[in-house]
Amino acid sequence: MTITASHSWATLAAHHQELGKKHLRELFADDPDRAAALSLSFEDILFDFSKQRLTRETLGLLVQLAEASFLPEWIQRMFDGERINVTEDRSVLHVALRRSAAPFPSARLDVMPEVLTTRARMAEFAELLRAGKAQGHHGTAIRDVVNIGIGGSDLGPKMVNQALRSLAHPALGVHYVSNLDGAQMAPLLQTLDPRSTLFIVVSKTFTTQETMLNAETARSWLKANLGDDVDLSNHFAAVSSRPERAVAFGVGPDRVFPIWDWVGGRYSLWSAVGLALMIAIGPHAFDELLAGAERMDEHFRTTPFARNLPVVMGLIGIWNTNFLGAATNAVLPYNESLKYLPSFLQQLEMESNGKSVGIAGDPVQHETCPIVWGELGNNGQHAFFQLLHQGGRLVPCDFIASVRSDYPLPGHQEALLSNCFAQSSALAFGKTEDEVRASMEKEGVVAEQIADLLPHRVFAGNQPSSTLLLKSLTPAALGALVALYEHKVFVQGAIWGINSFDQWGVELGKAVASRILPAFADPALASAFDASTRALLAYCGKHA
Amino acid sequence: MTITASHSWATLAAHHQELGKKHLRELFADDPDRAAALSLSFEDILFDFSKQRLTRETLGLLVQLAEASFLPEWIQRMFDGERINVTEDRSVLHVALRRSAAPFPSARLDVMPEVLTTRARMAEFAELLRAGKAQGHHGTAIRDVVNIGIGGSDLGPKMVNQALRSLAHPALGVHYVSNLDGAQMAPLLQTLDPRSTLFIVVSKTFTTQETMLNAETARSWLKANLGDDVDLSNHFAAVSSRPERAVAFGVGPDRVFPIWDWVGGRYSLWSAVGLALMIAIGPHAFDELLAGAERMDEHFRTTPFARNLPVVMGLIGIWNTNFLGAATNAVLPYNESLKYLPSFLQQLEMESNGKSVGIAGDPVQHETCPIVWGELGNNGQHAFFQLLHQGGRLVPCDFIASVRSDYPLPGHQEALLSNCFAQSSALAFGKTEDEVRASMEKEGVVAEQIADLLPHRVFAGNQPSSTLLLKSLTPAALGALVALYEHKVFVQGAIWGINSFDQWGVELGKAVASRILPAFADPALASAFDASTRALLAYCGKHA
Repeated sequence: MTITASHSWATLAAHHQELGKKHLRELFADDPDRAAALSLSFEDILFDFSKQRLTRETLGLLVQLAEASFLPEWIQRMFDGERINVTEDRSVLHVALRRSAAPFPSARLDVMPEVLTTRARMAEFAELLRAGKAQGHHGTAIRDVVNIGIGGSDLGPKMVNQALRSLAHPALGVHYVSNLDGAQMAPLLQTLDPRSTLFIVVSKTFTTQETMLNAETARSWLKANLGDDVDLSNHFAAVSSRPERAVAFGVGPDRVFPIWDWVGGRYSLWSAVGLALMIAIGPHAFDELLAGAERMDEHFRTTPFARNLPVVMGLIGIWNTNFLGAATNAVLPYNESLKYLPSFLQQLEMESNGKSVGIAGDPVQHETCPIVWGELGNNGQHAFFQLLHQGGRLVPCDFIASVRSDYPLPGHQEALLSNCFAQSSALAFGKTEDEVRASMEKEGVVAEQIADLLPHRVFAGNQPSSTLLLKSLTPAALGALVALYEHKVFVQGAIWGINSFDQWGVELGKAVASRILPAFADPALASAFDASTRALLAYCGKHA
Repeated sequence: MTITASHSWATLAAHHQELGKKHLRELFADDPDRAAALSLSFEDILFDFSKQRLTRETLGLLVQLAEASFLPEWIQRMFDGERINVTEDRSVLHVALRRSAAPFPSARLDVMPEVLTTRARMAEFAELLRAGKAQGHHGTAIRDVVNIGIGGSDLGPKMVNQALRSLAHPALGVHYVSNLDGAQMAPLLQTLDPRSTLFIVVSKTFTTQETMLNAETARSWLKANLGDDVDLSNHFAAVSSRPERAVAFGVGPDRVFPIWDWVGGRYSLWSAVGLALMIAIGPHAFDELLAGAERMDEHFRTTPFARNLPVVMGLIGIWNTNFLGAATNAVLPYNESLKYLPSFLQQLEMESNGKSVGIAGDPVQHETCPIVWGELGNNGQHAFFQLLHQGGRLVPCDFIASVRSDYPLPGHQEALLSNCFAQSSALAFGKTEDEVRASMEKEGVVAEQIADLLPHRVFAGNQPSSTLLLKSLTPAALGALVALYEHKVFVQGAIWGINSFDQWGVELGKAVASRILPAFADPALASAFDASTRALLAYCGKHA
């Protein structure tokens, strides 16, 4: 049965009618304890969702929806290692990557021996590099590490590496290359010394077009600089579930690290896919990252839904998407170190839940994942916040900040946080016509001008948001934060009745690209394509 | 009269009903010359909009809408220097910044003398720095330039600087600092030598909180390193319409460059706000950038609407937003050097047209600016494209690429472009159930599995897009591209009946932030705020 036909859904719909467009001003006036009642905390994270457009009653009804849905069963099944990624016939065990003890998920299916062995191998290799004891062909110590991967093999490690850069090894450069565009790889190579550079090639299949082309370019560059027939094995490592392909490429077998089919790319930063990250921040910080995530996993698995952060966060998204009709969700970090978080969450959410076919193959009867977008919040204020305040579109926002700065400078952090809190408050409460008139009168603006400008200076407010406030951006807090979003996505997928763990939607574009590519060399092949593609190819032919 | 009450609007609405959800497959089948008929070119830019969900007839009706709207009059009024930014009582003359000859907009209002004088002063200063002849206090040549500005004083120059980085001066580092977060400024300062660093403080009012705090931090850093009582004037330049404030801060009067109230921040990269950019790429390339934009300005001013790129682009956005109901617009550059373009366009579009009150103060009766979002397209394929292909949401996309690469590497550019063309094609045409079944049968998948997987592998298609294909990313082509988007925004603002040039929506958050800030030092002040803000402040107080 589709969730929209359930009693809980109908009850929520009726409740939504009743609540109507009740303004956050009223909601706050109605319930003086709202801020406490509609917030949760987990270790060093405060999750304040009191500025969402809902009441305690809404929350209760949403929790009932979750309890009546397949969610409890799906949580159980994920942690039991069942093959819940049904369209690919795989288990979903990224939670195993955070664990410290065997067996998991069960003695029969235990994946922990290989997880722990791999983690130990990663740590050994990372320590070697961090100690300056890994050498290139000519005996020079490796000083730069280039991660070559795309999507999940890039965004997760890069996002966390940036977030925890205050912990990064001072003498090692860690870089990320993903894009097919030579304009990413070529300028980076210009800054590197081939004698002291190591490339980590990260691809589950070891066939990803972008990654393999960039890896080949890296190999050509090394050969061109170190000599055509030298052994390059000191300059490569690999992460793949097809180790034989990595070895065939030229990576030493002891430098190939496994990943498994029960880890999706967008959930893989905790695995050997995070090797470059571990090299940057060290095995100890990496372990803390895992530990923070593991504790969030346990919170998610064991906490009653009404107090369960990922469940409540997921339910809020469902409320906003399916009842209030929000088409997007803005992610607004007030922390420069989280600058890649919006991109990371774009993948996590939109690739997981950007689907409109149910897990059993039936079209779903409701909207699913919104467009996730965003930027550093302070920058956004001077760019697109105009639309959030006065554009007339409903845009739920996630504000994310940390109390303490990793890079404290006098006066900066309080100013930053005051802006963060001010924006969510201004978005929620707005400024009424009467308030605008009063403040313009106070400024001494003449009556005629007040009349002209008044409508332009009114803020409707009622724009919903949550604030995630961390004490500080430690590895453990970040691990918990990322796991929080991972499980939020799981919650929504389970309630929407879709498979969050496949990604069939990426296949067609790849197939078409492989058919178009030969037409660059042989224009006659273009005739097989649509008129627009033909015209674009012709333009290239004319101007290449 | 509101545009929605016009005859042209009604005609378009009827046409939309008639066209219904006609699939792009049908539209291409119906009109074999569609690719040629629904594309335009301007100098080295091809604009292919044949994969938008419209026909030649739609285009004709949209052009009629534009002709019947206030647009022709508004174009005239902008180029005549009238005060079309009515809520701020200002002219809108960023086009003057691109021009090479006086008078403009008229002999009576001529702004060109000050524009040309400023441009010459900028060039002189830039050449001095590029020649290594600008010295810091101790006589060391300036090697690093830090632009301190936010919003329009950051995004434009930074975006273009990145786009044209292949032309950047090899011995000068040009950096951009915007955010209040010390985590942006502090790590940068660690890499700089105060003796050879110049800061350019860019703020129209010279009161922008972020910019002034970062400027003060820069000054403190210089003093701490160079001596408390040294003359720092060799380490600062400024761009402001309040030069006296810049001088009071400590900038030498000859290093203060003007901006004017007829330039909005988001339209200002062509002015002295682009000084850091000019230092990076040189006055010659900067002039080419201006010249490309100027030619687009002339194209916009003089070309009949049906062949006018900004007009057609703006009208397509109106069709997608107001008739098809798209809530967002994705910007997907297939060029690593354009990685900041989505952020730049977010500001340009959403700050200009993210409004719901008409120019005369009446609420508008239609949607206005969509959420503009995006990422480098090739990366997006491995992240959020899943949703574009199968998420069931209508998301018009702008694909942007250049035929030639600035950083050619064997095999990369064709692979990149084949992906760009493949994605827009796959989004447009999809893959039907029959096609999926046929290809699965060909792969040898057994019948039962075909039945299970089929619905997950179907692509509905009909996702509209335009492709902007540049011959190469030259300064002139980029100038034209940015001017194209600027005027697109103008077209939409004129038709929607809003003022694209004010930004009242940024005021409230600033005011609230200034009230919240003192509560960090004096918690008693928190009682004035809403319950959520109080709780967030209390959490900070506990964990700071």
